Amino acid sequence: MLHPDRLFPADETTRRIARALYETVADLPIVSPHGHTDPRWWATNEAFSDPATLFVTPDHYVTRMLVSQGVPFEALGIGAGAEADPRTIWRTFAAHFHLFAGTPSKLWIEHALETVFGVTERLSAATADDAYNRIAACLRQDGFRPHGLYERFNIEVIATTDGALDDLAWHRAIRNSGWAGRVVPTYRPDAVTDPDLLGFAENLEKFAGLSGIDTRTWDGYLDAHRARRAAFRELGATATDHGHATPRTADLSKSEAASLYERARSGRLAAGEAELFRAQMLTEMARMSAEDGLVMQLHCGSHRNHSRDVLAAYGRDRGFDIPAPVSFTEALKPMLDAVGMAPNLRVILFTLDESTYARELAPLAGAWPSLMLGPPWWFHDSYEGIRRYRQQVTETAGFHNTAGFNDDTRAVTSIEARHDVARRTDCAYLAELVTTHRMDEDEAFKTAGLLAGELARRAYRLG
Amino acid sequence: MLHPDRLFPADETTRRIARALYETVADLPIVSPHGHTDPRWWATNEAFSDPATLFVTPDHYVTRMLVSQGVPFEALGIGAGAEADPRTIWRTFAAHFHLFAGTPSKLWIEHALETVFGVTERLSAATADDAYNRIAACLRQDGFRPHGLYERFNIEVIATTDGALDDLAWHRAIRNSGWAGRVVPTYRPDAVTDPDLLGFAENLEKFAGLSGIDTRTWDGYLDAHRARRAAFRELGATATDHGHATPRTADLSKSEAASLYERARSGRLAAGEAELFRAQMLTEMARMSAEDGLVMQLHCGSHRNHSRDVLAAYGRDRGFDIPAPVSFTEALKPMLDAVGMAPNLRVILFTLDESTYARELAPLAGAWPSLMLGPPWWFHDSYEGIRRYRQQVTETAGFHNTAGFNDDTRAVTSIEARHDVARRTDCAYLAELVTTHRMDEDEAFKTAGLLAGELARRAYRLG
Amino acid sequence: MLHPDRLFPADETTRRIARALYETVADLPIVSPHGHTDPRWWATNEAFSDPATLFVTPDHYVTRMLVSQGVPFEALGIGAGAEADPRTIWRTFAAHFHLFAGTPSKLWIEHALETVFGVTERLSAATADDAYNRIAACLRQDGFRPHGLYERFNIEVIATTDGALDDLAWHRAIRNSGWAGRVVPTYRPDAVTDPDLLGFAENLEKFAGLSGIDTRTWDGYLDAHRARRAAFRELGATATDHGHATPRTADLSKSEAASLYERARSGRLAAGEAELFRAQMLTEMARMSAEDGLVMQLHCGSHRNHSRDVLAAYGRDRGFDIPAPVSFTEALKPMLDAVGMAPNLRVILFTLDESTYARELAPLAGAWPSLMLGPPWWFHDSYEGIRRYRQQVTETAGFHNTAGFNDDTRAVTSIEARHDVARRTDCAYLAELVTTHRMDEDEAFKTAGLLAGELARRAYRLG
Repeated sequence: MLHPDRLFPADETTRRIARALYETVADLPIVSPHGHTDPRWWATNEAFSDPATLFVTPDHYVTRMLVSQGVPFEALGIGAGAEADPRTIWRTFAAHFHLFAGTPSKLWIEHALETVFGVTERLSAATADDAYNRIAACLRQDGFRPHGLYERFNIEVIATTDGALDDLAWHRAIRNSGWAGRVVPTYRPDAVTDPDLLGFAENLEKFAGLSGIDTRTWDGYLDAHRARRAAFRELGATATDHGHATPRTADLSKSEAASLYERARSGRLAAGEAELFRAQMLTEMARMSAEDGLVMQLHCGSHRNHSRDVLAAYGRDRGFDIPAPVSFTEALKPMLDAVGMAPNLRVILFTLDESTYARELAPLAGAWPSLMLGPPWWFHDSYEGIRRYRQQVTETAGFHNTAGFNDDTRAVTSIEARHDVARRTDCAYLAELVTTHRMDEDEAFKTAGLLAGELARRAYRLG
Repeated sequence: MLHPDRLFPADETTRRIARALYETVADLPIVSPHGHTDPRWWATNEAFSDPATLFVTPDHYVTRMLVSQGVPFEALGIGAGAEADPRTIWRTFAAHFHLFAGTPSKLWIEHALETVFGVTERLSAATADDAYNRIAACLRQDGFRPHGLYERFNIEVIATTDGALDDLAWHRAIRNSGWAGRVVPTYRPDAVTDPDLLGFAENLEKFAGLSGIDTRTWDGYLDAHRARRAAFRELGATATDHGHATPRTADLSKSEAASLYERARSGRLAAGEAELFRAQMLTEMARMSAEDGLVMQLHCGSHRNHSRDVLAAYGRDRGFDIPAPVSFTEALKPMLDAVGMAPNLRVILFTLDESTYARELAPLAGAWPSLMLGPPWWFHDSYEGIRRYRQQVTETAGFHNTAGFNDDTRAVTSIEARHDVARRTDCAYLAELVTTHRMDEDEAFKTAGLLAGELARRAYRLG
Repeated sequence: MLHPDRLFPADETTRRIARALYETVADLPIVSPHGHTDPRWWATNEAFSDPATLFVTPDHYVTRMLVSQGVPFEALGIGAGAEADPRTIWRTFAAHFHLFAGTPSKLWIEHALETVFGVTERLSAATADDAYNRIAACLRQDGFRPHGLYERFNIEVIATTDGALDDLAWHRAIRNSGWAGRVVPTYRPDAVTDPDLLGFAENLEKFAGLSGIDTRTWDGYLDAHRARRAAFRELGATATDHGHATPRTADLSKSEAASLYERARSGRLAAGEAELFRAQMLTEMARMSAEDGLVMQLHCGSHRNHSRDVLAAYGRDRGFDIPAPVSFTEALKPMLDAVGMAPNLRVILFTLDESTYARELAPLAGAWPSLMLGPPWWFHDSYEGIRRYRQQVTETAGFHNTAGFNDDTRAVTSIEARHDVARRTDCAYLAELVTTHRMDEDEAFKTAGLLAGELARRAYRLG
């Protein structure tokens, strides 16, 4: 299923250069500074249970596409009274696999099926059982447990994403296990920075408990963040992550902020004040990053759980997350004026609104020393998405203000596939720069290596 | 004027594949589920009067371009004291034909001139009379009347767009004529759903008259819609169409909606309430679609009649319609939460704001089972426009969540040309997927057939 | 460093056509209707002092990139206590030159280094001194003074940008010098149309002094504009330029406008009224343009001086100018309804928000006879930027509603380089139209000439 020249340009000369570039980066170790694998996998190294649980049920790219074409969630193992037999779920998936024609999911899944599990026939109703049997047989072998995949994929370091209320027990277990893999946590404090979340007040109490610091005052609350950030750093964290609907920031006076926090804590925020609190917290987190050196990631612009009924019946992260327009220029200014020229600050910006690439993000990252542009995110982590990103970002921001690649995945078997798609697409782009004489060949070889790992290592301070 | 390889990729290998794909779809029947031909043409089969009336005066793509370069509307046969001689109008058009270099209008017009009328020299002041004479001679022959063009173009089915206040007499005449062509109406209720239109109150009275239902109550008004939708379905309609400035929807309680309608009916809406009424009516129309199965089309984002003076002097649809930014994510949520998971609902979304393709529309159509993405609309129904659409939509929504092609035209001679441009451009895109190994050749052949007709047939329930 | 086929398409057939097209325009004279060279250079013809002052310190494309990667402004000769030795500044620049890989700055700088100064090795720490010495030696020769560069670049006409409060002494000196070069001023009245600027009231007094007209009344203020426009026209101006944050326009009654002006003049504007005044002034300027024939340029959408600290410490125009979203459709309507169909009016629109190209600007320019679309601006004046512009604009607006190319530069040595990049990229685009049979070869040759100079000459009435 996998052609050795896949994703390379059609033009023979350019393809030859792309191939040569790719050969120098194909086998480089994987640097994975942002993603959603479960630290428990890495800690326990338990076998994955079955093909459906590995490839179908938890992959929101897969489930949303099937649901969009009329397959019920239940047939995919999701919801009350859902199908429980993994082989039946797998057959449903295989019978609908043609829906993925032209999508990155198809590339990722076929890459994993062929290179990890030796499945070489295209998935369909007819081939479903063969593929299932082959994968299931693999999963019973040691080499297909998490640590085996880590080695097979040549991972150098992988970050997980962990809530501020996570006790990091699995990360401690990894650390204490003696295993040589490098798995680091990332501080994601949304549960204690977003007053709109259910249970915000209780979360603040748990936060106090975990940090050992009284969170009933603004100062105490900020100190609790500092304490937890230190605990994360202790276990190898080099970054924080912030998932906000908008990139709005604020820089209130200390007394205003303290009083806003008091209202948030006690559930007495006026309309719009939850947004203001989140905005203020981005600036506070940036201030702490300027102190402790944790790289700050800002992922914003998704309207999560767009269907009320799907959320109620099937829960979060089911593929019903729809991007909305965002603008960074005005939104970030309060934070940037407060701390944006601090020498140690690094903020990596992500967007789902591609109109911001050339208009805002490349100019911002190409000027402010504290700002970097994260790789194409989510829907845009694809051949065309990566091309648009490079074409719209490079001329203004160059390569050095971008942060390399993120696989951003909870689908562990797809990690290598995603880095491979990014490396191939980047090499194709560089080859076009060479044939159009916008870049010399020696520069292209250097840049291919930067994009394949070194920029991520530097951006996330993982060197 | 027409090269057999037009619109195919420059790269030889890719071009060969594109050509092979195109050969399998070039002669497929035309499925035209959305457009603006006049049902009267199909009912009476009268000859078209002259080249200027066919190609120039009613084509807002043509008139706006000439006007933008200083040609007065009057010289094109529009407005008080306008030029009345079709040959003089045609000469003005021909003398300015170089202005269309690089535009889809040029491709469409040259395709029609050459394949329909046998004109083989590029239009200019020098060739104007020859072309005029040749077309005029054709128009006197039977084969160039509407039914002849229908057969020549191998049309399988064509939909017109008809107001809620249309009595459908021409459609009944077509039905009763014994002619084998399939022409179906589309329910377009803007005149009775938009309180901002002049004559809204009188329209409601006509609506009562046509439907035989008292529209003075909210329930009666909704029943009148149901009755008229049934009358349209009776004559073959499978779809409705809604032209709104924004995609805003609402889901008011029944009593709120009834009271809002009462204020709309009596001309007592407060500021912003006309927009709210339109928003509510989108949800009501969706509810009815979930019941009666009419596919709902939503065309939004055009600021119609942008020039006050042009509207006053020359009327509507003169090319002074300018798109504005839109966003669907928040706007559609009330309607979708109300009825978006209903099994029988289908809503096809159109946009003039291409930034919504990858950001909103592909994610929406790639998740919600009721949503589909319509083809590139209006300014974007072109080689580059179709390419951008495929490149920005496919990776997230796949092919099966898109609705095939619409020619969307009132220029009847251009119907074949428009489908041909779309088929060629789609084959070029698929060929690139093949040479970059993002799609296997057998899949590409299957997909070419889907895009050339089958997806439209399915999406619009015209099978 | 410069390959003769740079920026041409990879495909051999297409490249051959691009090369043939380019050969016909490569040596055409340069028409430069918008830019920021200093009229004093042209008046005095003094030698440029050194390589750093020529290439580094004043070029905000260069300084922002270096600063974004941690180089202090001071090391670039900017700010209190800045490095004063041009050779040291040059070395810093050269040592960081790899940061520009993939950017237009690299293309422009290498073009100038090689074709103007004979530097043939890529800039780096190792080659810094050689390059410096060679440039410095050139700068001591007459042919490298402004007039020499004017002739070397084969400039036909160049416009500068001059404030309403500029006494035009240098322009008068150029006129009186007997030198054959054609340098014309452009009327940029922001200092007396933007009440938010510091010193607005004093500016109005200076404006009265320069124009000899009492500006304390609305009528007098407008007459002062008329007088200054006449003075600019006298010295060859054919255009005005307006730098606004948004394209908002207004059309107040005369008494409303007069009263708004009175509040602006006396510093008593309410919130939002400064924006309203600027909006009104765009309409007033359009009215005057319809009278006196000065072509009106509207550059909007930049959030200037985005960093408070950078502005305070290092001043304006340091590369911290970040675009924000704009929309023209609603914003321009008041001005267009007031004067948009006036036969003599020409307004050239520029954008930093590329989402407006296909959505708004091409439809506007492709309908309104008074509107034209300016070339890709600032961040978008690049290979990819020009391609996106042509691909998104041409199909709706054609070529004749676009205004040719602007180099828009204060970096005098880059003038030829910028026109060369535009000419090559346009020829590459036209060659693709030819190989995909969207344009015949004879049309492509004609169009190449239009784009390389003639459209600018016509658009700016510089014929």
